[in-house]
Amino acid sequence: MALDADATLGEAGEFGLISELVKLFPGDEHVLVGPGDDAAVLRIKHGHVVVSTDLMVEGRHFRRDWASAEDVGHRAAAQNLSDINAMGGTARHLTIGLAAPADLPVAWALDLARGFAAECASVGATVVGGDITRADEVVIAVTVLGQCLQSPVLRSGAQPGDVLALTGRQGWAAGGLAVLGRGFRSPRALVEAYRRPEPPYAAGQVAAGAGATSLIDVSDGLLAEAGHLAGASGVAIDVRRDAFEVPEPLQAVGAALGADPLQFILGGGDDHSLLATFPDVASVPDGWQVVGEVRAGEGVTVDGAAYDGPTGWTHF
Amino acid sequence: MALDADATLGEAGEFGLISELVKLFPGDEHVLVGPGDDAAVLRIKHGHVVVSTDLMVEGRHFRRDWASAEDVGHRAAAQNLSDINAMGGTARHLTIGLAAPADLPVAWALDLARGFAAECASVGATVVGGDITRADEVVIAVTVLGQCLQSPVLRSGAQPGDVLALTGRQGWAAGGLAVLGRGFRSPRALVEAYRRPEPPYAAGQVAAGAGATSLIDVSDGLLAEAGHLAGASGVAIDVRRDAFEVPEPLQAVGAALGADPLQFILGGGDDHSLLATFPDVASVPDGWQVVGEVRAGEGVTVDGAAYDGPTGWTHF
Repeated sequence: MALDADATLGEAGEFGLISELVKLFPGDEHVLVGPGDDAAVLRIKHGHVVVSTDLMVEGRHFRRDWASAEDVGHRAAAQNLSDINAMGGTARHLTIGLAAPADLPVAWALDLARGFAAECASVGATVVGGDITRADEVVIAVTVLGQCLQSPVLRSGAQPGDVLALTGRQGWAAGGLAVLGRGFRSPRALVEAYRRPEPPYAAGQVAAGAGATSLIDVSDGLLAEAGHLAGASGVAIDVRRDAFEVPEPLQAVGAALGADPLQFILGGGDDHSLLATFPDVASVPDGWQVVGEVRAGEGVTVDGAAYDGPTGWTHF
Repeated sequence: MALDADATLGEAGEFGLISELVKLFPGDEHVLVGPGDDAAVLRIKHGHVVVSTDLMVEGRHFRRDWASAEDVGHRAAAQNLSDINAMGGTARHLTIGLAAPADLPVAWALDLARGFAAECASVGATVVGGDITRADEVVIAVTVLGQCLQSPVLRSGAQPGDVLALTGRQGWAAGGLAVLGRGFRSPRALVEAYRRPEPPYAAGQVAAGAGATSLIDVSDGLLAEAGHLAGASGVAIDVRRDAFEVPEPLQAVGAALGADPLQFILGGGDDHSLLATFPDVASVPDGWQVVGEVRAGEGVTVDGAAYDGPTGWTHF
């Protein structure tokens, strides 16, 4: 897709811009995976280092009245740790940058760091550096380094005939966000899932060991991420509605808001569940649930047809 | 220093907060150097990876009317590449995060990326990942990974009796910034030095090889950075005024603005010159200039006395 150089970011969209940016960063023989996957893979002497970076902006990725600073710290770390998980790797070290107004309470920043460090510690990773500067709004910039004990699992390996499988809670955080957006604080389980996601941190390595052909974490929406797998792999993916059991709290929210609760599952992000493809049903590890299949073609369908609900989050 | 948990960032200051944050990030046996130096040093299998991260915020670190997007890209990369230089290392891979308003022109973002990639390429480093998201103001978040072929040179190794030495242009960018701040565009050499710093990228490794006992890059001001060396090493540093030759364009700006041009040299940052200590004059490499000495005690003096001009930049 050609990009109008006079367009604004809003007009071009995130992906339009990224595809242009990637051309400017050609990489070298040390870059096994550069821009465009969940994380970059570097060959450094005898090891691999996996690197990923993410920004979180107040008012857009979090609100101080919807989550405590400690919660925001947990979420910022989880989002990044999950990117290493989505490569089949192990997160080791992180840096965190904080841009914030001068009137931000120190306590908020310290609680943020506490939550961040705690989430990192839960997977054995440590914070090794950072930066602080002044800005009008709070921006949190995180970079995570990890290692892969085996070959990293990319987005691009799905083949027609593979099965699509999911592990981890999915739709809970989106349900919690919907609840908070209406001014409510319950069902508490969903609100908590939004505030402190519980990504299936061990599952990425397990999937890699089980022969996953592609792997991604669901940050922006299940169907959107399935679309990323399909696009990178040059295949079509069909998701089966009846593969999902709608958990009770999501049913309650759906009823209260007059929405199909499956929308939270199909379009919701922020839980950092993992979506993978495997060569066949027999190779899908315990704890994963088959939710669709890979076919020749392109794009994502639900039960064989186009889906007209929201498929995920867009950044511009 | 105990920190009031109810204080704002503005009240506590950057360093007060950092000293608290460091306590929350204890590191592990893989972290050879954690928060508090120019970069973190990680032991990963058989190699060392050096990591540093920095944020740049529009209106604070750059203005779109004072520098082109490409210039800003060069500056953002230079600032980070210099951190690796200041460890005696070689920069290899960088990530860049961009938070920006939806009405930011795509061309601006692409030019930013171009300048960034070009500056990285000038030292053989490549961009391996990034993130883009929406925000009210432009924030650029960079993380750089590098390697040290020999032991990294920290801030903490200066000893009484060492000499203090400087390499690279110093004060030029501050002079250029002062000129721009008054609405002028000349002397052009200074404005260009501000827009595209030319850090002495090869000098960090040379200093390490020559036995530098401590090393830092001048980002925030020469005396401020000397203070960081003194504080980390537990020594006093005296800087000699007569060690500096004031270049002609700085003399011109000083005369035009009615300011002592030495202020730009002693208090200015943004050139990313390198400041190091060496055991004796004989070990100072070519291209470095002796500008002071290390003594027992604490703090920084100029010609043996307290300095009452600005010593550097503070972030809050």
